[in-house]
Amino acid sequence: MSKSPVVAILGATGAIGVEVVQCLERRRFPLSARRLLASARSAGRRLPFAGREQPVEELTEHAFDGVDVAIFAAGGSESRQFAPLAVRAGAVVIDNSSAFRMQADVPLMVPEINGAEIARHRGIIANPNCVAVIGAMALWPLHTRNPIRRIVAATYQAASGAGAAAMEELRESTRASLEGRSYEPRVLPHPYAFNVFSHNTPVDPDSGYNEEETKIMQETRKIFGDESIRVTATCIRVPVLRAHGITLNVEFERPFAPADAREILGAAPGVKLVDDVARNYFPMPADASGHDRVLAGRIRRDLSDPTGRSLALFVVGDQLLKGAAPNAVQIAEALPR
Amino acid sequence: MSKSPVVAILGATGAIGVEVVQCLERRRFPLSARRLLASARSAGRRLPFAGREQPVEELTEHAFDGVDVAIFAAGGSESRQFAPLAVRAGAVVIDNSSAFRMQADVPLMVPEINGAEIARHRGIIANPNCVAVIGAMALWPLHTRNPIRRIVAATYQAASGAGAAAMEELRESTRASLEGRSYEPRVLPHPYAFNVFSHNTPVDPDSGYNEEETKIMQETRKIFGDESIRVTATCIRVPVLRAHGITLNVEFERPFAPADAREILGAAPGVKLVDDVARNYFPMPADASGHDRVLAGRIRRDLSDPTGRSLALFVVGDQLLKGAAPNAVQIAEALPR
Repeated sequence: MSKSPVVAILGATGAIGVEVVQCLERRRFPLSARRLLASARSAGRRLPFAGREQPVEELTEHAFDGVDVAIFAAGGSESRQFAPLAVRAGAVVIDNSSAFRMQADVPLMVPEINGAEIARHRGIIANPNCVAVIGAMALWPLHTRNPIRRIVAATYQAASGAGAAAMEELRESTRASLEGRSYEPRVLPHPYAFNVFSHNTPVDPDSGYNEEETKIMQETRKIFGDESIRVTATCIRVPVLRAHGITLNVEFERPFAPADAREILGAAPGVKLVDDVARNYFPMPADASGHDRVLAGRIRRDLSDPTGRSLALFVVGDQLLKGAAPNAVQIAEALPR
Repeated sequence: MSKSPVVAILGATGAIGVEVVQCLERRRFPLSARRLLASARSAGRRLPFAGREQPVEELTEHAFDGVDVAIFAAGGSESRQFAPLAVRAGAVVIDNSSAFRMQADVPLMVPEINGAEIARHRGIIANPNCVAVIGAMALWPLHTRNPIRRIVAATYQAASGAGAAAMEELRESTRASLEGRSYEPRVLPHPYAFNVFSHNTPVDPDSGYNEEETKIMQETRKIFGDESIRVTATCIRVPVLRAHGITLNVEFERPFAPADAREILGAAPGVKLVDDVARNYFPMPADASGHDRVLAGRIRRDLSDPTGRSLALFVVGDQLLKGAAPNAVQIAEALPR
């Protein structure tokens, strides 16, 4: 690949696409040309680039001619349809959707954790689920010292995970609620103003788990490269605009002193320790929004495990950032040039 | 005690006090007289009663003369100061604060669970923590069939738990956020608009648990009368006006089929099963607010426990209702007359 690749961003006008575009600029990714791709509906819009405005092109079968790296920030159906075309055109696809994540020949990458996986890609590299990335960033440094056996996760997921329209629905429905007006949900299936609800992805009638939970459970094992880790998750949407929270109850192979875990996370790349007991100051979406690092705190013994092998913690990360855009750009940076 | 007792409500103008007053009326509690007590600041206000208006009296040392039942819906310091005076004046105190809950000679009552405890009171009966009540209502029917060994809880707690002023702060700060204005928190220590944060009660520097979590852990064991149950909790405030949610991962003594748990909870008193997988419809604060019953759903196997002995579920209950006021009134109804 060229030292200055041509980079295409698919879904450039969506919640994650916008962050990818900004992240490429912020990290001064050495691209020679940028192609903005979106559905016909958004084509023709113009986004700022290098002091000028650049038009958004319509996504077609030939959109990837001459493209070296294609960052897909659209939905799974677009990825399934266009990723093979992009690969055939010679591009490396970094896919933010769930379409290919669990395929054996597709690396599921968090560069800080399993960067070596990049060597085995065959055209497509998958960006993990945003909650899985945020949890993995906090748990990996602990796992390398004392292997994780079991994870019980409960999430506090923001509107941003459902896209820009869901964020707008949260704002609009909350405004309506405060003004005593009724509001009919359009994007999400339940009232969102001052309400929480079980994640809106379909629930498997056999297991009882929704797709988001299943992703977290499967992807965590794949990212960690350890199929023996037992994981369960309950995914709940909360009326937060961006940044997801996760409570984690984690069982390790051996006893783990909270002070040791705190020290490890305080030094971990991509993690910021926020664990101020005296001030009652811990990770919050209000602090995580707009930040690339994952915030970790509330680190303490899980007192329901008398063996001392379990810890409890609370982590928060901006799902549009480390959970999505910068992780994709980091993967692009790691591609051999 | 008289068949038509004189009932005093302490903190009658607060978030819980208002619900107690309404609950006494709704359940047609056979009182002969009602006394509304509050701090000097609220004294003189008038509340409707039996078609007329009744003044709120100032809480003084002599406020309990002639009172048979005193429902305390104020804070722990008021309870510690005035409950002994009320008992000395001959009243039975039903205390909603945490002041006496863990005292060995004070029953900690949820009538559906441990109603027989009422026989051993010595003047004070404690109403449990609202989250503990909501969780216990859903778990007790399961526990009686298959004893619980371990509970891992993560909460989604509403503003109502911090009182009417916190509910107003959530509304006001959210309005400010939507209008692009800044807002300085006055009631809670962190920004509340579109944000979640670790529960605002003090954190014990040794255990790392906050007071709310400690209450849930201790009180669940006391309500269930089983000190062997291992419990851990992570308490998080979410921007919801009223009704608390709890994710529960529960280990039982023996394997538990989700279908059996569903059937048990579908028939349990005070519980409403809301578990519609096909419609992705599960317990939500929007549905629980204003309802006495606890909503339970998302019942499924905890796949991180390969023995089949663990279930996961999500419950939501209006903390001002079953979590507080009706539970207190139910205790009053159960007093021998």
